Amino acid sequence: MSKEKPSLPKGTRDFGPEVVGKRNYIFNTIKKTFQKFGFQPLETPTMENLSVLTGKYGDEGDQLIFKILNSGDYLAKTTASDLEQGSKHVLRKISEKALRYDLTVPFARYVVMNRNEITFPFKRYQIQPVWRADRPQRGRYREFYQCDADVVGTKSLLCEAEIVLMIDEVLTSLGISDFTIKINHRKILSGLFETLRAQGSETDLFVAIDKLDKIGQEGVSKELQEKGYTPKMVDRLFTLLSIEGSFEEKLHNLEVAYKQAIGEPRDNIELDETGNYNGKTKVGFLRALDNFVGFEQVKQVQDFLKNLNFKNFNRLEFDPTLARGLSYYTGCIFEVKVNNVKMGSISGGGRYDNLTGMFGLPDVSGVGISFGVDRIYDVMEELQLFPESAQNSTQVLIANFDRQSETFALPILQQLRTAGISTELYPDQVKLGKQMTYADQKKIPFVLLIGSKEIETGHLKLKNMRTGEQESLTLEEIINRLAA
Amino acid sequence: MSKEKPSLPKGTRDFGPEVVGKRNYIFNTIKKTFQKFGFQPLETPTMENLSVLTGKYGDEGDQLIFKILNSGDYLAKTTASDLEQGSKHVLRKISEKALRYDLTVPFARYVVMNRNEITFPFKRYQIQPVWRADRPQRGRYREFYQCDADVVGTKSLLCEAEIVLMIDEVLTSLGISDFTIKINHRKILSGLFETLRAQGSETDLFVAIDKLDKIGQEGVSKELQEKGYTPKMVDRLFTLLSIEGSFEEKLHNLEVAYKQAIGEPRDNIELDETGNYNGKTKVGFLRALDNFVGFEQVKQVQDFLKNLNFKNFNRLEFDPTLARGLSYYTGCIFEVKVNNVKMGSISGGGRYDNLTGMFGLPDVSGVGISFGVDRIYDVMEELQLFPESAQNSTQVLIANFDRQSETFALPILQQLRTAGISTELYPDQVKLGKQMTYADQKKIPFVLLIGSKEIETGHLKLKNMRTGEQESLTLEEIINRLAA
Repeated sequence: MSKEKPSLPKGTRDFGPEVVGKRNYIFNTIKKTFQKFGFQPLETPTMENLSVLTGKYGDEGDQLIFKILNSGDYLAKTTASDLEQGSKHVLRKISEKALRYDLTVPFARYVVMNRNEITFPFKRYQIQPVWRADRPQRGRYREFYQCDADVVGTKSLLCEAEIVLMIDEVLTSLGISDFTIKINHRKILSGLFETLRAQGSETDLFVAIDKLDKIGQEGVSKELQEKGYTPKMVDRLFTLLSIEGSFEEKLHNLEVAYKQAIGEPRDNIELDETGNYNGKTKVGFLRALDNFVGFEQVKQVQDFLKNLNFKNFNRLEFDPTLARGLSYYTGCIFEVKVNNVKMGSISGGGRYDNLTGMFGLPDVSGVGISFGVDRIYDVMEELQLFPESAQNSTQVLIANFDRQSETFALPILQQLRTAGISTELYPDQVKLGKQMTYADQKKIPFVLLIGSKEIETGHLKLKNMRTGEQESLTLEEIINRLAA
Repeated sequence: MSKEKPSLPKGTRDFGPEVVGKRNYIFNTIKKTFQKFGFQPLETPTMENLSVLTGKYGDEGDQLIFKILNSGDYLAKTTASDLEQGSKHVLRKISEKALRYDLTVPFARYVVMNRNEITFPFKRYQIQPVWRADRPQRGRYREFYQCDADVVGTKSLLCEAEIVLMIDEVLTSLGISDFTIKINHRKILSGLFETLRAQGSETDLFVAIDKLDKIGQEGVSKELQEKGYTPKMVDRLFTLLSIEGSFEEKLHNLEVAYKQAIGEPRDNIELDETGNYNGKTKVGFLRALDNFVGFEQVKQVQDFLKNLNFKNFNRLEFDPTLARGLSYYTGCIFEVKVNNVKMGSISGGGRYDNLTGMFGLPDVSGVGISFGVDRIYDVMEELQLFPESAQNSTQVLIANFDRQSETFALPILQQLRTAGISTELYPDQVKLGKQMTYADQKKIPFVLLIGSKEIETGHLKLKNMRTGEQESLTLEEIINRLAA
C-alpha cells in the first residue's frame, strides 16, 4: 500500500458538506422549476461508446474527450506496426469507451434509441457531470455539472417563451434579480451576413461576432478583415449591430435595414439583365428573404410572453450581437448575464432543427436551455444569496457529560428525531469545550445540556449558539419550538 | 458524422423519467434519515489518481478499475521496449487517472487531505456512482450507485446502535417491513478460529463461512478441509455456528462455549510444563481472550438500542455466521436481508479500525453502513411499494384546441404554476386524441379542456384521467382542489 500523500487529479474538486448543501440548493431550485413546467428527469451513463461521441464536437472537442482504456490485456490486439503509427491510430485498438463530454449528444442518442417508446413532444431535464480534458484554470474544471432542459418534437414557439419564464423563475427563486436575458435568432444573424453581401463565410462572421464581448469592436474588425471582409463591410456590420432602442424598436429598425439591403418579399421577382435580382440569384434572394422569419419568430415569442403575463420585460433584451459560437442552433438563441458582476453568461440555449440527425433520425426539432451551476454558485457567493437553510446541518447537539447523562439523553435523542428534528448526541464523554467547538464548526444552532440538575427537574437547558442565550425548557417545549 | 445505430456500453443503463423518479424516491428517503442522524453530504470527483486507488482492493480489484488514458499524445513517453513488456508495464506510462471504484477509498483520501479542517467525529454520507469492469450479468452493472454513511473519529458504540436505527428507519420509510438486520463481530469470528485450535489461516475461515448462504454446509466443509482444517474442527465449527435461541441466548451460549474452549480471563496464568497455558502460549492466550470483547460490544449495542427505545428487536438477529468477506472490518459487522424475497443483502457495514492507514494516517476508527440501491429498487418493484408520488409527473395538461383556446389558456397556465401545480399546455394544435395519449403515457392525472363554451362561461372542464370523470369548475376551484 502506498503511503505517499494522496492528492486530487488536477481540474477536479472535492465538495465538502457546506458546498454540497449550497450546490444542492441551486440544483433543487432548478429541478423544481423544470418540473413545474412539465420536464421530467433523464439520467444517462457516465461512459458512452467512443463511436457515439467522436465527430460530434469538432476536432478540438475530440481531443478533449477523456478516453477509457479497455479492460484486461488492452494491448492484445495491437501490433508493433500499429504502435509505430502513433497515439491516434492506436486509440481505436485500446479504447472503446469515453466519458460524457456534454448532455446533448447522450440525450440525442437516448431519443434515437428509444424513439418508439417516447411520447413526443418529449420534455426532459438532465443534471449530471461532464468531463473535458481542458487545461484547468480559474473557474474552468475538468469535471463539472451541466443542468439542461430540452423539448424535442415540436416547433411551437411557446417552448421558447417558456424558456424565458423558466430562466426568470430559477434566478428569481435563487434571489438573483439584476440580470438580462438576451435573445437573438440564428436567421437574423444569417440575414446580417446577407446584408453585407460578403464573399466570406457565414461561420467566420458568427465566430467573430461571438467574441465581441472579449476582444471588442477593434478585435472583431481585425479578425473579419483577415478572413476577407472589406473595411466597408465591417463598418456596415457595426452600424447594423449598434442599433439602439427598446426591444420592439431594435427589432423593427434592424428588419427595416435588412429590407433596404436585401429587398422585400414580393410575388413577382423581376430579374435584371445578368439574370440576378438585387445583386443575388433568384435562389439566393429567396434564401435571403427566408431570414425574415427570424424577426417574426422573436416577435411571436414576445407575444407569447405577454399572454403568459410575463412581467419582467425589462430583463429581456433583443441582442443582434448574440451568436452562441459554432453551435448547432438554427432558431432562437438565448444567453443570460448577471448585471454588475464580473462573470460570463450563466445560462444559454436555443432551438436546433436537427438534433438527432447525427444518429440518422432527421427532422427532430427541439429547443433547450442550460444553466451553469459553477458560475451561479460564484455569483450567489459574491452577492451573499445563500440562505442558512442551504446548510442542511444538524439542528440540535446533545452534550455528553457522563454515563448517567448519556443514558438519560438516549430516549430524548430519538424523540427529537421522531419529531423531525435532526439531532446528534456527542458520542464520547469529552470536555464540554470540545463538544461546543464541534457544534460551532458544524454550524449546529442549538446545544442541549443535560446535567444532574436537569435530570432531576426534567427541565433541560437549551443553548442558542448564535445568541449564547440559555433557557430551561421541558422536552415538549423544545420540540414545539424547534419543529415549528 | 457516424450514422450507425448508437448503443450503450455493456453493463451501463439509461434511466428514463419513471425510473429516475423511483430511484430519487429511494435516495431522498435515505438522505433524509442520514441527515436526521447528523450526517452531512460529501462528494468526491469521478476520477481519482491511479496511485490513490491501486493496491487498495487486492489484485483482482485492481484489474476491475477503469483506467483513463492520458490526454494528448499519450504514447509520447513510451518506447518500443516498454511496449514489448506488455499492458501492465505500459499502463503506468499512458494512464494516471481512473474511475472511482468505491466510496470508501475516496472518503479515506478526503479525510487525510483535510484532516486539519475536519471537526471529528466526522459524520459524512456520500451517494455517488462507482465503476467496476466486472463481467455484466443480471443485477450486476459496470456503473452503479453506492449510498454510504460513515462516522470516523470515535469508538463509541452509540454509532453502531444508530446504524441499526438508521437501517430500520430507511427501510420502514420505504414501506419494507419484513427484514432482518444481522449483527456479528469480527472478534467473535476470531474467537471462533481460536476455539477450533486450527493451524490453518483465519482468513480462510472467514472466506469460507462467508459462502455458507451460497454453497451450504457441505461446500464450506469441503473448502475448509482443502485448506487444511480437519473434519473434527469442521464439525466443531458447525456445532458452534448452529447455536439456537434468542439474541441474548445465542450470544450467551456462544460465549460459554468459547470460555470452555479457550479459558476465562484470570489474574494468574499458570503455565504448564511446556510453557503453555491451555494449549496456547501466554501471548496467544491473551490474544484469544481479547476476542471476548466482541460479545461485550454486541451486548453494549443492544443496551444502547434499548435505551434509545428501539422497538423492533424482532428484526435484529445475532448471526455468528455473518463474516462480510475479506473486508477491512475489525469490530461489529452488519448485513440486512429482506425476508421472503429472493435477493442478496440490501445493506451492509461495520466498524474498521484503520481506514486512513492506507494513506499514512493511523488510528482513525470509524463505522459505516452502505445501502444497495439497485437491490432495494428491485425489492420495492417486486413488493409494489413505490407510491404514485414517486413519479414527479406533471399534474395538469391543458389541451390545445385552436389559436383562440391557446391564447385563453396562457395566463391560466401560469396561474396554475404560480399556485405550485406543475402544468403543461400542449404546444401544438393537434387532434385531441393525440393529446390525451400524451397525458396518458406521461401519467398526467388531470387534463383541462378549454373550448369556446368554457371560454364564454369561465367554467373550465377538468377531466380526471383515472376515473374518466369530467367536472366544470372555475380556475379558483381547480387551484383549490389541486394545490391541496
